[in-house]
Amino acid sequence: MSDKYKEFRPNWENEVPVEGSYRSIFKWGAPDGFKSPNEKLYKVMKDKFNLTDDDFKEKIYLGNEKVEANKEIALKPEQIEMFRKIVGEENVKLDDYSRVDVAYGMTLYDSLRLRRGIVENIPDVVLYPRDRDDIEKIVKYCNEELIPVYVFGGGSSVTRGLEAVKGGVTLDLRPHFNKVIEFNEKNQTITVEAGMSGPKLEETLNNAVKLFGAKRAYTCGHFPQSFEGSSVGGWVVTRGAGQNSTYFGKIEDMVMQQEYVTPTGVIVSDPFPAQAVGPSIDHIMMGSEGAYGVLTHVTLKIFRLMPENQRKFSYIFKSWEDAQAAAREIMQSQFGFPSVFRLSDPEETDIALKLYSVDGTILDKMMSIKGYKKMERCLFLGFTDGETKFTKNVKKQLHKICKKHGAMYLTSYPTKHWEKGRFNDPYLREALVDYGIMIDTMECSVTWDSMPKVHAGVREFCKSRPNTVNMTHMSHVYPQGANLYFIFIAKMDTVEEYLDYQQGILDNIQKYGASMSHHHGIGKMFAPWIEDSIGKNQLEVFRALKKHFDPNNIMNPGGTMAFDLPDEEKRVRKY
Amino acid sequence: MSDKYKEFRPNWENEVPVEGSYRSIFKWGAPDGFKSPNEKLYKVMKDKFNLTDDDFKEKIYLGNEKVEANKEIALKPEQIEMFRKIVGEENVKLDDYSRVDVAYGMTLYDSLRLRRGIVENIPDVVLYPRDRDDIEKIVKYCNEELIPVYVFGGGSSVTRGLEAVKGGVTLDLRPHFNKVIEFNEKNQTITVEAGMSGPKLEETLNNAVKLFGAKRAYTCGHFPQSFEGSSVGGWVVTRGAGQNSTYFGKIEDMVMQQEYVTPTGVIVSDPFPAQAVGPSIDHIMMGSEGAYGVLTHVTLKIFRLMPENQRKFSYIFKSWEDAQAAAREIMQSQFGFPSVFRLSDPEETDIALKLYSVDGTILDKMMSIKGYKKMERCLFLGFTDGETKFTKNVKKQLHKICKKHGAMYLTSYPTKHWEKGRFNDPYLREALVDYGIMIDTMECSVTWDSMPKVHAGVREFCKSRPNTVNMTHMSHVYPQGANLYFIFIAKMDTVEEYLDYQQGILDNIQKYGASMSHHHGIGKMFAPWIEDSIGKNQLEVFRALKKHFDPNNIMNPGGTMAFDLPDEEKRVRKY
Repeated sequence: MSDKYKEFRPNWENEVPVEGSYRSIFKWGAPDGFKSPNEKLYKVMKDKFNLTDDDFKEKIYLGNEKVEANKEIALKPEQIEMFRKIVGEENVKLDDYSRVDVAYGMTLYDSLRLRRGIVENIPDVVLYPRDRDDIEKIVKYCNEELIPVYVFGGGSSVTRGLEAVKGGVTLDLRPHFNKVIEFNEKNQTITVEAGMSGPKLEETLNNAVKLFGAKRAYTCGHFPQSFEGSSVGGWVVTRGAGQNSTYFGKIEDMVMQQEYVTPTGVIVSDPFPAQAVGPSIDHIMMGSEGAYGVLTHVTLKIFRLMPENQRKFSYIFKSWEDAQAAAREIMQSQFGFPSVFRLSDPEETDIALKLYSVDGTILDKMMSIKGYKKMERCLFLGFTDGETKFTKNVKKQLHKICKKHGAMYLTSYPTKHWEKGRFNDPYLREALVDYGIMIDTMECSVTWDSMPKVHAGVREFCKSRPNTVNMTHMSHVYPQGANLYFIFIAKMDTVEEYLDYQQGILDNIQKYGASMSHHHGIGKMFAPWIEDSIGKNQLEVFRALKKHFDPNNIMNPGGTMAFDLPDEEKRVRKY
Repeated sequence: MSDKYKEFRPNWENEVPVEGSYRSIFKWGAPDGFKSPNEKLYKVMKDKFNLTDDDFKEKIYLGNEKVEANKEIALKPEQIEMFRKIVGEENVKLDDYSRVDVAYGMTLYDSLRLRRGIVENIPDVVLYPRDRDDIEKIVKYCNEELIPVYVFGGGSSVTRGLEAVKGGVTLDLRPHFNKVIEFNEKNQTITVEAGMSGPKLEETLNNAVKLFGAKRAYTCGHFPQSFEGSSVGGWVVTRGAGQNSTYFGKIEDMVMQQEYVTPTGVIVSDPFPAQAVGPSIDHIMMGSEGAYGVLTHVTLKIFRLMPENQRKFSYIFKSWEDAQAAAREIMQSQFGFPSVFRLSDPEETDIALKLYSVDGTILDKMMSIKGYKKMERCLFLGFTDGETKFTKNVKKQLHKICKKHGAMYLTSYPTKHWEKGRFNDPYLREALVDYGIMIDTMECSVTWDSMPKVHAGVREFCKSRPNTVNMTHMSHVYPQGANLYFIFIAKMDTVEEYLDYQQGILDNIQKYGASMSHHHGIGKMFAPWIEDSIGKNQLEVFRALKKHFDPNNIMNPGGTMAFDLPDEEKRVRKY
């Protein structure tokens, strides 16, 4: 990010939020971590949104007020007393701040509400379980007393996954439930408590030699953009994917064993790399988003830490068609997969080249001379992971295919820039929202043959709104298709305007035949689309499991996965 | 196989079975396909089992008698009439032979029973559905009339998966339900009807250029030893694995979309390479072994056909410990995986070197000189698949690791011999059983850290029986562990003796902490162990799904997955 603004520079977010404020809840990541748009992005926004410097002189809805819930505690005193007995006095919190803190995730809608002091769905009480036995006791008691149970892992949900719609208790796993249970170098696995944070897990594995006397260092291979604010449990129950998933796999490929505490009993999957003993218990539980039970322990497959073997690359294609054809060929050629695989459509490319400071460089000039035209050309970047000769060959074969499809090699320069921002881009959002500029992302899963129509169709809807940036990229790529990410940036005046637009995107993702989510999960936010998306009979299978695990509907109730969504909230296919 | 017996040569099976006979049902594969032991194996058997040539002069229980069921048809005439209306007169069979033919798979127990004319669990009627609508109508009608429904795909079950314990109807998918629905080169997928046979699928994909105007030829990548007698549907509902699974994955990794007709309704999974929309419908249905519904269509991910890139290898290790350490390192080094990965323990190595004609060659001499001792040394063989540089590197890295662990390279000679036998070894069985020699295989799944104790423990049980060959190998290998295959050969006098021994092996697989099946499924044969193996709560999850899909228990009833297993048949953990 350049700090040298030649002209007016808005007073971008740069202060640690007031303690106890709404902002301290919705702000991403480290309280003293900030990211503001560089001058190029600032110019793009003014240009695209028809704004002037004057529009960036006054901030709105900063959420610096002290959190006030004004929500009575509906639980009975003896119930709260029982919780104190179970987890200890100090691990029960009833104050407004603690309750609001665990009820919101990181979807833009959460930020917009908290900025306005809108507090909707919070638990009556927050519990900090110390171990799995605490969790077992809590679930058992809540099931007897019909008290709703919500779980807070890392708090990075972008699907309203955490909202305590029916009150009750939220188990906040952060303080205590974050330990390593077992490191097993022979099997190359680690078993952790579900509240283990992403960075803590990775740090642990990187330091396995020191911590466990291991022969080498390891990595988890799972790095979502939300890494800093994510938990292992959250990864698993939402079927998350990291940015390196094209090589390392989605979280469901990494899970080897799990334990869930459900109202019906404890479910432990088998600890084998594969088996043929009925349906997969792991796959029945993963993606259940807290609605079947509380995930306690996870055994993850881990990988050797070999950053020295990573080979970076970037290319520019003449068109989105060429780029897609190359991507498909790379994934179907069977030389192994690159780790990070990110291919931007023309509009995202246009902005990315600005953000990654390629604009105006010699690379930029070469692109122009060689006929890679603005708003047609597509940026492809990434890197490889694995054994050194393997990564070398992946890069070499990928290079051949890119050249064959008319791409120009852009060095590793843009990739290095992307890497710098990969975990701190989320810090950018609040800087923009302070000035009423909304930025949000929606992602879906597509096959190669439906990708062009999904991209064109959703984009057409996005661009039907004037003065709106719509950037799309594919990432998490497979021989059969990929994930498509839709990012929009727009000046919007009301929360309703944002919601209408966001829901329109979801309608169109559904209309053009993509899956409603590749790795964000469904939560309460996308639940209205689920029945129309997967079909009634398929949803009934999830419901049958729900009924089995949680007959009293105490686990994450209030719309999760559309299990108890009122009919009027269901989206009916419009097209 | 050498045909030059220097001494007495038993009259090994070499005649096409009598038409209409039991033997024509239990005999493996092509009626005119045979395989007899070569002289070395014959000698081994005589030696190990304390037999002489005299013991190979008289055959017993050949099963050449005409099939007679002596089982009344319990269905009502109007029910049979209805089936005739649904599938057409010509697609309803009531004769004894048709009924017995579809009730037995390929487990040794099936052969032993049929050889003795023991006909136990056959359907009242056999139906040959023409399309998925036929299947939908049949399931609906059977659910209304409470008629049990069994499905016959390829007939290669080794778990008593097909047995019509409760009578009713068996849908034999072979004659009509075996067509290609869609070939999609862009997505690299093929959609087929569940009765499509393995060889037909592979032939179709190999000829994609001619058949579909494809740009290249493809392969399914799934080659179980039962390939010739297997069906796509069978692969999926039992969670099968091919011998090349270390590279291509198990069948559950290849399935992209499926349709099942259940009594509750039609279940269609989503057609995406990955998603995060609740639990995986695919993984809920796979492994359900016909107990939830009838699998109709499957969309499989396919691969490029590149046999020219396969690189064969074989090595000999000094010990089982060295071999395991190398196997683990190969799988954990992240240079990609070989395709066939087969590592034999000392006893299997001893016999394999005889069967593959290594015994007595220059290789054999070199092994002895270099200190690779009989009954200690371990044979590792396989080959690679994929892009040419990828396969070259896999072989190169694997070579380094084998050398590091003290192995000697044995050229591709043993691998070529193994390849010759890979699909016709099953033909060997009946040649042996004709003389009362039982050969059977049991397989399980283990992690690296439990492999030594599972191998030693199960082997100890196997060898506690005198005069018994027990060969073990690992195949289907993962960074976290592998499948372990236990093969025994022994002269046994009664069916009971066989059953006791086979069940003892299963008891010990369970005792030492391995999964009851890596890729054979559970069926009715392993069902007695399932509750003790996966646990009560986990089995209850399967039961909840059973109840949802099939509330009247008409789908493959009579013990499948222990859903309706009488308490007295459950194995209780002995240790």
